[in-house]
Amino acid sequence: MKHLLLAAAAASLTLPATAQEPAPIPSPGEITAAAPASDWIAIAAADLLVMDLAPDAKGKARRVVIQLMPAPFSLGWIGNIRKLAAAQWWDGTSINRVQDNYVVQWGDATEKKALPEGLVTVPESAYLSERKRGATTWLPSANGSYAPHHGVLAGWPVAWNADAVWPVHCYGMVGVGRNFSPDTGSGAELYTVIGHAPRHLDQNIALVGRVVSGIEHLSSLPRGTGALGFYEDEKERVPITSVRIATELDVSDQPRFEYLSTESDSFARYADARANRRDPFFIKPAGGADICNIPVPVRSVEK
Amino acid sequence: MKHLLLAAAAASLTLPATAQEPAPIPSPGEITAAAPASDWIAIAAADLLVMDLAPDAKGKARRVVIQLMPAPFSLGWIGNIRKLAAAQWWDGTSINRVQDNYVVQWGDATEKKALPEGLVTVPESAYLSERKRGATTWLPSANGSYAPHHGVLAGWPVAWNADAVWPVHCYGMVGVGRNFSPDTGSGAELYTVIGHAPRHLDQNIALVGRVVSGIEHLSSLPRGTGALGFYEDEKERVPITSVRIATELDVSDQPRFEYLSTESDSFARYADARANRRDPFFIKPAGGADICNIPVPVRSVEK
Repeated sequence: MKHLLLAAAAASLTLPATAQEPAPIPSPGEITAAAPASDWIAIAAADLLVMDLAPDAKGKARRVVIQLMPAPFSLGWIGNIRKLAAAQWWDGTSINRVQDNYVVQWGDATEKKALPEGLVTVPESAYLSERKRGATTWLPSANGSYAPHHGVLAGWPVAWNADAVWPVHCYGMVGVGRNFSPDTGSGAELYTVIGHAPRHLDQNIALVGRVVSGIEHLSSLPRGTGALGFYEDEKERVPITSVRIATELDVSDQPRFEYLSTESDSFARYADARANRRDPFFIKPAGGADICNIPVPVRSVEK
Repeated sequence: MKHLLLAAAAASLTLPATAQEPAPIPSPGEITAAAPASDWIAIAAADLLVMDLAPDAKGKARRVVIQLMPAPFSLGWIGNIRKLAAAQWWDGTSINRVQDNYVVQWGDATEKKALPEGLVTVPESAYLSERKRGATTWLPSANGSYAPHHGVLAGWPVAWNADAVWPVHCYGMVGVGRNFSPDTGSGAELYTVIGHAPRHLDQNIALVGRVVSGIEHLSSLPRGTGALGFYEDEKERVPITSVRIATELDVSDQPRFEYLSTESDSFARYADARANRRDPFFIKPAGGADICNIPVPVRSVEK
């Protein structure tokens, strides 16, 4: 009884595959685990934003690692984020908002901390990028509600139409808080998605990256009881001790991650398996999946 | 800066509407708040399953209220759940599994507790119900990945094809853990969705209700570090002190809720607003929404 519900990944390992009995069809996780090393792409340390929170109540360290998006996406905001990290601007700020089934948001709760010099103001047009035809990998994904097409581009979930491509708000994606239009946010106020993909935010707000490790340190925080899930008592805020680009850390302290090439055969089989679960637990494959149910596999690399 | 990101609901209340300036277009929350009392339907106490957890570390009570689905859905499992609650079977069991962006699961971690007499074994065919044409309310929702049609039926998110209709796995929906097919689960082992809608579970596992209050007591629990998010140390499990149908509680202790009639004009306007955000924060309406981004409004009724 213990392994009820989506037990296939664990249980199938224990199912004997005898001559009489064909091996079970692999789960998405098993396909990923079996992918050759050549299908994995290292994430540059320069693209990892490392956020350390104050230790939890039991004294346990809490590190959240965010992968910043590659060009052509959100370059202006990501440039600002690099400047903010270099200025150690987030050190001493806090997690200020936790809204259930929506977002966790962090930044300067006092709203008084001066921003570093040289941040740029990014126009709303930068929420989208020019589409280069053929550059995207189609996925067995519809979500026609939100865009004509969905897929992945160089490892990132995107939507596109005839002219433009834009990143989408899946679980764990990191975006830039802003005020009312035409404000687009500087990048100093960030959030990550901790619930069902709020796709209505696509093209309305900048996405700059995704949490690749430690999202449980954000998603399991107590929900804020104020409007929009803001913490009402400042003692509820979670202190941010340090935010650095990984290259600014001691080499021994630099996290290392790689993602499964979304151009690889392994990813194609993984995506098909996500859309058509045939591993032992399932009795009826869905026949498709929405883009946010085909998360790009990312794994930690042991030093 | 404090109200960055989806600030409209809160901020628009503070935006002066002068003669020169038209009132802002209402947000989905404002439409719901303005709905007449006649658009709200009381949820029968007999359909509310009340789960009390042990108080949290600060001694704060933790109550989770689940609305059971109406006929024709999942009748066999729901009948079993009523028997289990009447037998006080869950008292002394625990929350045993918390898997990030997936589910929280509870039941008898010892796997040894005898089930009450009279539980029925439900066939897999009961994952679907016969479709009564015209009974569903269409929503501006696609998710073509998962079904030809999506909408709501008597207040519940469903998908349907020419022959059948079935409930869908949105955030907060409650389902029945099971083992490998042909097992369909008794209803003693339950889970709720705490992440992006795992729609691949639709038609593969029984849905029996939804959390209408207190999901934060489940979604903010520490994630389990074992396989599938199970807690590895039994001390991590969260004790369940009591699970009752609300009618079994003292009247003074019975929670009362109502939901917005999904046949009402208010709901139609709410659903349209969810699919086409035009309130002040938004610059580009999505033009649609997936079924799980149009949650049916449920509110507590003060005694």
